[in-house]
Amino acid sequence: MNRYPLQKHVLLAVDCIIFGFDGYNIKLLLIKRSFKPEKNKWSLMGGFVEQKESPEDAANRVLKQLTGLEGVYMEQLHTFGNPYRDPVERTVSVAYSALIDIHEYEMQISGDYHAEWFLLKEKPKLIFDHDGMVELAKKQLRYRAAFHPVLFELLPDKFTIPQLQNLYEGVYDTLFDNRNFSRKILSTNLLVKQKQKDKLNSKKGAFYYKLDRKKYKADFKSFLNFVPNPDKFIM
Amino acid sequence: MNRYPLQKHVLLAVDCIIFGFDGYNIKLLLIKRSFKPEKNKWSLMGGFVEQKESPEDAANRVLKQLTGLEGVYMEQLHTFGNPYRDPVERTVSVAYSALIDIHEYEMQISGDYHAEWFLLKEKPKLIFDHDGMVELAKKQLRYRAAFHPVLFELLPDKFTIPQLQNLYEGVYDTLFDNRNFSRKILSTNLLVKQKQKDKLNSKKGAFYYKLDRKKYKADFKSFLNFVPNPDKFIM
Repeated sequence: MNRYPLQKHVLLAVDCIIFGFDGYNIKLLLIKRSFKPEKNKWSLMGGFVEQKESPEDAANRVLKQLTGLEGVYMEQLHTFGNPYRDPVERTVSVAYSALIDIHEYEMQISGDYHAEWFLLKEKPKLIFDHDGMVELAKKQLRYRAAFHPVLFELLPDKFTIPQLQNLYEGVYDTLFDNRNFSRKILSTNLLVKQKQKDKLNSKKGAFYYKLDRKKYKADFKSFLNFVPNPDKFIM
Repeated sequence: MNRYPLQKHVLLAVDCIIFGFDGYNIKLLLIKRSFKPEKNKWSLMGGFVEQKESPEDAANRVLKQLTGLEGVYMEQLHTFGNPYRDPVERTVSVAYSALIDIHEYEMQISGDYHAEWFLLKEKPKLIFDHDGMVELAKKQLRYRAAFHPVLFELLPDKFTIPQLQNLYEGVYDTLFDNRNFSRKILSTNLLVKQKQKDKLNSKKGAFYYKLDRKKYKADFKSFLNFVPNPDKFIM
């Protein structure tokens, strides 16, 4: 096999940014790095891509090896290629991200692994350029959450407004005024009020709601109404 | 300097997907590859990343070297890492894309270069996985065009409905019914009718319109009205 002449080679790695929602807060999954450099520092789940492996396959393998997590749908986020991002040797990293329901996967992350969930605001400083990777993943999540019901996917079928507000506050890292949030979300007419109340989390109780998915889809379309049948083209 | 042990190295390349609008049609810029393998076949503008260069810098350098184009704002699209995508040696490619006004840059693409603009529907078969790169870039452009006025940026300040329709038809690769398109776009109330008509392109003439950018922004926000101050968070 002819090789390309005189070209410089690099190492290829992957890093996985896993956000999780535990019903109240958005968290980030981290591990303590087990090898040099930066041994024992907090890190995203990362590793090198094997010779005959695609970056996608590597991301799934690395995530499973380091945390036990399996079957998580990760999307390619961005490739980080600054020549000096790894002090040992030039390593280009393809970053992948996902947002999961922590309870759905909690059996997989057993004590065999030393992965830990951190509140976003309590995230320790990470190695290399991993903080920048997390920032970009947050930005992408915020962008998506503004256009698509990705966050609703994480809530149970029936949820309360405070629960939804918590989730949005976690993703956008801000506190929303309770009355304003409630007014704005209800004015979209996308939520259907249920008869039952959640009485566990407050004395007064909070009504449960369901997302009107049909309506969400219709409203989404009406915004895009100068592109006929946007679903045909988008995604 | 300690090197990581036993890791496999890869070549790192970039490929540039440049879409252009000439006032009537969306086109794709291609070159004839000047080295083996696949010499003389049509290709995206691509090349290897130098030792001390970031992929972003490499994309700008490669684009300039192969076409003369300079100062084009390209965004990272996706990294293509299938182990067998290049038959000579494993090469991971970071793809970048941009959408430009062809007239604005036509002086730069001089006869010194052999880059050519192709109508999307007349695009020749490309080397390696470049057809897949173009497909993904088209998908991303369609997604963006549905949410943001990126296509309006390519039109002159005053434009006609047929001109806008042409642009959307090019991006979405479909024919829209003239009356429906006109009715839908006008029903958004985002276009402001001008007094003048374009009489060059039809006997009857077509009124010029301008985009009401303020209103566009307001309507965009109203769609996102359960996220307070979306601009603060998105981009």
